[in-house]
Amino acid sequence: MAGSSWGELFRVSTFGESHGAALGAVVDGCPPGLALTEADIQQALDRRKPGSNRYTTARREADQVEILSGVFEGKTTGTPIGLLIRNTDQRSQDYSNIKDSFRPGHADYTYQHKYGVRDYRGGGRSSARETAMRVAAGAIAAKLLSQLGVTIRAGLVQMGTVTAQQLDWNEVHNNDFFSPCKLAVEHYDQLIRQLRKDGDSIGARIHLQATGLPPGWGEPVFDRLDADLAKALMSINAAKAVSIGDGFDVVNQRGSEHRDEMTPDGFRSNHAGGVLGGISTGQALTADVAFKPTSSISVSGDTINRHGEAEAIVTKGRHDPCVGIRAVPIVEAMTALVLVDHWLRQRAQNADVSPNTPNIMAP
Amino acid sequence: MAGSSWGELFRVSTFGESHGAALGAVVDGCPPGLALTEADIQQALDRRKPGSNRYTTARREADQVEILSGVFEGKTTGTPIGLLIRNTDQRSQDYSNIKDSFRPGHADYTYQHKYGVRDYRGGGRSSARETAMRVAAGAIAAKLLSQLGVTIRAGLVQMGTVTAQQLDWNEVHNNDFFSPCKLAVEHYDQLIRQLRKDGDSIGARIHLQATGLPPGWGEPVFDRLDADLAKALMSINAAKAVSIGDGFDVVNQRGSEHRDEMTPDGFRSNHAGGVLGGISTGQALTADVAFKPTSSISVSGDTINRHGEAEAIVTKGRHDPCVGIRAVPIVEAMTALVLVDHWLRQRAQNADVSPNTPNIMAP
Amino acid sequence: MAGSSWGELFRVSTFGESHGAALGAVVDGCPPGLALTEADIQQALDRRKPGSNRYTTARREADQVEILSGVFEGKTTGTPIGLLIRNTDQRSQDYSNIKDSFRPGHADYTYQHKYGVRDYRGGGRSSARETAMRVAAGAIAAKLLSQLGVTIRAGLVQMGTVTAQQLDWNEVHNNDFFSPCKLAVEHYDQLIRQLRKDGDSIGARIHLQATGLPPGWGEPVFDRLDADLAKALMSINAAKAVSIGDGFDVVNQRGSEHRDEMTPDGFRSNHAGGVLGGISTGQALTADVAFKPTSSISVSGDTINRHGEAEAIVTKGRHDPCVGIRAVPIVEAMTALVLVDHWLRQRAQNADVSPNTPNIMAP
Amino acid sequence: MAGSSWGELFRVSTFGESHGAALGAVVDGCPPGLALTEADIQQALDRRKPGSNRYTTARREADQVEILSGVFEGKTTGTPIGLLIRNTDQRSQDYSNIKDSFRPGHADYTYQHKYGVRDYRGGGRSSARETAMRVAAGAIAAKLLSQLGVTIRAGLVQMGTVTAQQLDWNEVHNNDFFSPCKLAVEHYDQLIRQLRKDGDSIGARIHLQATGLPPGWGEPVFDRLDADLAKALMSINAAKAVSIGDGFDVVNQRGSEHRDEMTPDGFRSNHAGGVLGGISTGQALTADVAFKPTSSISVSGDTINRHGEAEAIVTKGRHDPCVGIRAVPIVEAMTALVLVDHWLRQRAQNADVSPNTPNIMAP
Repeated sequence: MAGSSWGELFRVSTFGESHGAALGAVVDGCPPGLALTEADIQQALDRRKPGSNRYTTARREADQVEILSGVFEGKTTGTPIGLLIRNTDQRSQDYSNIKDSFRPGHADYTYQHKYGVRDYRGGGRSSARETAMRVAAGAIAAKLLSQLGVTIRAGLVQMGTVTAQQLDWNEVHNNDFFSPCKLAVEHYDQLIRQLRKDGDSIGARIHLQATGLPPGWGEPVFDRLDADLAKALMSINAAKAVSIGDGFDVVNQRGSEHRDEMTPDGFRSNHAGGVLGGISTGQALTADVAFKPTSSISVSGDTINRHGEAEAIVTKGRHDPCVGIRAVPIVEAMTALVLVDHWLRQRAQNADVSPNTPNIMAP
Repeated sequence: MAGSSWGELFRVSTFGESHGAALGAVVDGCPPGLALTEADIQQALDRRKPGSNRYTTARREADQVEILSGVFEGKTTGTPIGLLIRNTDQRSQDYSNIKDSFRPGHADYTYQHKYGVRDYRGGGRSSARETAMRVAAGAIAAKLLSQLGVTIRAGLVQMGTVTAQQLDWNEVHNNDFFSPCKLAVEHYDQLIRQLRKDGDSIGARIHLQATGLPPGWGEPVFDRLDADLAKALMSINAAKAVSIGDGFDVVNQRGSEHRDEMTPDGFRSNHAGGVLGGISTGQALTADVAFKPTSSISVSGDTINRHGEAEAIVTKGRHDPCVGIRAVPIVEAMTALVLVDHWLRQRAQNADVSPNTPNIMAP
Repeated sequence: MAGSSWGELFRVSTFGESHGAALGAVVDGCPPGLALTEADIQQALDRRKPGSNRYTTARREADQVEILSGVFEGKTTGTPIGLLIRNTDQRSQDYSNIKDSFRPGHADYTYQHKYGVRDYRGGGRSSARETAMRVAAGAIAAKLLSQLGVTIRAGLVQMGTVTAQQLDWNEVHNNDFFSPCKLAVEHYDQLIRQLRKDGDSIGARIHLQATGLPPGWGEPVFDRLDADLAKALMSINAAKAVSIGDGFDVVNQRGSEHRDEMTPDGFRSNHAGGVLGGISTGQALTADVAFKPTSSISVSGDTINRHGEAEAIVTKGRHDPCVGIRAVPIVEAMTALVLVDHWLRQRAQNADVSPNTPNIMAP
Repeated sequence: MAGSSWGELFRVSTFGESHGAALGAVVDGCPPGLALTEADIQQALDRRKPGSNRYTTARREADQVEILSGVFEGKTTGTPIGLLIRNTDQRSQDYSNIKDSFRPGHADYTYQHKYGVRDYRGGGRSSARETAMRVAAGAIAAKLLSQLGVTIRAGLVQMGTVTAQQLDWNEVHNNDFFSPCKLAVEHYDQLIRQLRKDGDSIGARIHLQATGLPPGWGEPVFDRLDADLAKALMSINAAKAVSIGDGFDVVNQRGSEHRDEMTPDGFRSNHAGGVLGGISTGQALTADVAFKPTSSISVSGDTINRHGEAEAIVTKGRHDPCVGIRAVPIVEAMTALVLVDHWLRQRAQNADVSPNTPNIMAP
């Protein structure tokens, strides 16, 4: 509980504010014997780091991760893994004008109400940098899953009115948008330039696909795989909607078209998105996440300060016109955390594929 | 954990299959002193019961709830509340033809994989009737919340291409669709009749609104109010997508239009849907849920049996052309469970409205 | 959490007061495929029932258990198991004189403080009858464990100054004290008769032994097997102390005598009681529990009523001179719940006996 | 769950091995507004550090703690507090001879079975140094509790046959044994010297007393205050028994003598040890913990190596003849963690002292 832990059998507890001394996490429940190095985790973090991305924030974030425990002679021991990233870039002076103001669209107002105090420096714990730890922990989970043949991929498929026309996962690494559609890249580029000129921002939609899941992961009723995934993805900063499979399109689908018929050669379709009754079917797990546009923009807006007086606010500093670009590795990380937890639960229940049930997904 | 419990401080554990002896729940963590009777809960259950609804299943479900513990002299004692509903309508013979077949779109296939066995009678634990207990527990939570001034309302706002044009909550009780739009009712009616003729089904979208929340409910990072709500709503049978506030529309919104500016007189808008940084703002909490069309239809479909052989399947019996109609009370119930749990957590933290923070939502 | 749940992977949630309508429990997490009938559970309950025991309370407690869900065609389905016991013996009139008084040594005073109200009838939720549900759930756990070769046994080994001289587990079923020592029975008998004359009560010590555990169960640091067991046993009504292995005797043992040396033929001793570093060694898990004397006695005592005025209190009705006798099946039940939970956790971690580690406990 | 977390509302997750890079913890759930500095925590750690104690290990342990998050301008923010202690003293070479041997009485054998691998350096995670984090987290909890008027004290009251004759808490800080009895110190001293000559070790008993608790803390049935405390104390390295109040003495007490009678002026006695029905009574919470003698001794013993061959083992290096001395601050820390968690739960339930219930413990 207590809000900063995720998972039951593979549990991640994080700490750290954007401008505090360090970010850290404890990953508890990773089975022993997994080969793990700092490089494995650093690779995932670097993918997230702005600077290597022309379109994201210029802020330098070194984000060098340290493994402090839980690994011995290159393999996990089964005991808790402590991770640490020291904060090296702490330009507090960028935020001095907002100490007493609430930035609309940010969590300032709500934090003040909840805690009575708030760390005004760069968003405190609600900042996107906090998610570095999720990415770090997710990298460990992803490595575990890859050994099971599970692959998780996410990419940008819509920004404003620009929409991806295809899903070529090889393309994702070739551009700075994590776009699986080559043609869309140029249009994203134009849109971003325009937004920089306008000092404004735009929303985004991320598409997720996880393949290689066996059937049977997920717990019925309350901890369904899709429900846990919805929570995981909605917990990402700026997320406003989560859909599985055909998502909101199902509202206008008939049963005869929506259902995924089965034949001895496999499923005919995947409207369900890989989950039925809260449990994986063995088909690709697909989902979409909507991210709202950043509220840290140059365009002036109305707000109030902590004395209730009207103020105008302009956020200076270095910001992203589209936070959606940065969320892609986080979407993958959260998905990994959910899947590995369900895998461990399934193993505890010890109810693998029944010999009497034809696994139409098997080769 | 263990998949059939919800909540941390207000915990609900359920049991019971559609055609088992009974459905039950333990509600643990309800504070003492709340006036509570079986009628309070029955009222919520009756709202869910088919038969009073021309468009839902003709199956008679008595669903009489019993309070077995936790209430003394009409008030909760603070000890666990046991709830029980005996199953009175158990026509197993309706399902005999599907003992060895997997109904596409249902959880049969996934259940077989997960458990090695499955109770083929009417969907077992994945049936919609199991949710009776969620509604029962939700009724207790809702009563608690109403004492705090929190009101939760949900209604059908889209079925196929028919969309509600207005939100008049008084209208919801005047029709059999839980529709807050009077004009749409006739169109829903026509659509349903057509579907019955065709032996098919359709999806639906439910809109949720909770008012009266103070600012400050929710835990940052992992147990955000919106993330918990997403999980709760996605856990409802047939749910495929959850959105908060403007949902997927934010993908095409600029920051300058999306952000909800603040003035001394209050917020100017509510694109956020009442949640910022995972914490309630005090504005109305709004969300939408997409429900897929039922797969229990007369239209024949292809499937396989447990020996892997191709089969055609037709589901006879009494079914709903639109499960979305029935989900409305469940959406309200799950929302109540999430809110009451967050209220209790907030109370534990004891960080109410700081005297220095202007509550622009206060009268 | 919420105080009425036990376990993580094998979770038991209970409800019900001594004089409420019913006692119930939800057992969630039992793997599928276990053969289970009401008779299995009833057998454990009957062992607890007074009346078959000359020395325990004459109160008739039918305690007929019903399985309401989670079992299909004689085997567990893997879904939650609902258990119910209707209360048939509810003589409230025995307790009318104590409505406003606090019985010293009982939880009346503390309950009033905690909840502001209390159900004065027969102890409410702090009564020993509530434990019927623990015994019921424990029976399911014990059946699971027996399939793994794990046997759990408990017996009375001390009452007042009378101490068992031997541990013959076959003897336990031949007397009404659950005594594994035949010679002690006559002395227990005399002591009880004297106490009835005096209208007083006495404490007891229960010894527990669980055999057949493989090495490796338990989680280091905070959820150690011995720590979880200590909590489980201390949670039994009237328990005041828990010891593992040699218990308090270790205070006066030297390291050279306490340590259990190892040879290729096995351990030389078992001072540790089967647990090292919080994890099972494969040796017999042994523990002792001290139970205080019942405070429901005829001997008059001083107390206060809810207005703070001095009063004398005499508890009439039908009571036990030694609650320790009744605790034996509960000690076994709680031990079973702890062990099965740790077994499931171990299975989740999937770290069975390493081929490189000699299992000196194996045949 | 996952074994390295403690608490529900005040949750502590730890990581770190004895000879790993660092020890750390995340403390989640500390309410905002508590004044907290590194010095507060360092003070508690220093009390634990060997070297300042003539009778404990000569190993130098700097144990300088760092607060990495959760504190802003000297006060807790309500967000997770990250704590870190770098390991500075890592003489691995002391342990090279035991790489393949199992030290009897240590967790080596069980760890190998559980994990398939083990970090042989100095006990890995089962080492006493790991508890530094418990002490650190406990210091935060203790500071919170002191603001509520709750004081927690522990001290050594028995070592071998030497027993404390009085409880003068001021004395505890005047000697190196944490002894509240001045007269016993000299005898402890003699005993330790003898043990060093013999190359052996001895067990110990620690007494705990917490005062200032209001009545009403604790959850009935499964998370009783005494049960949670039993788990917390039994989880301390080398603990073998926990007793509350009169502990095992109750086995030979009559009800008429054991019960703590009440008068308008207060309780007459405290055999219960401050807990009734799992809930605090307002009286002093008293408990005792038995610690086994260290198995790291010079006296040779029989063991086996990982190939199952018989070996003799002698542990060289710098060790304690009595680990009990070091456990005193850990007993206090674990008690603080339990109490603060129960305090927060009580606050969530919001059932403070009823105006109608006379609090005979109030001044």
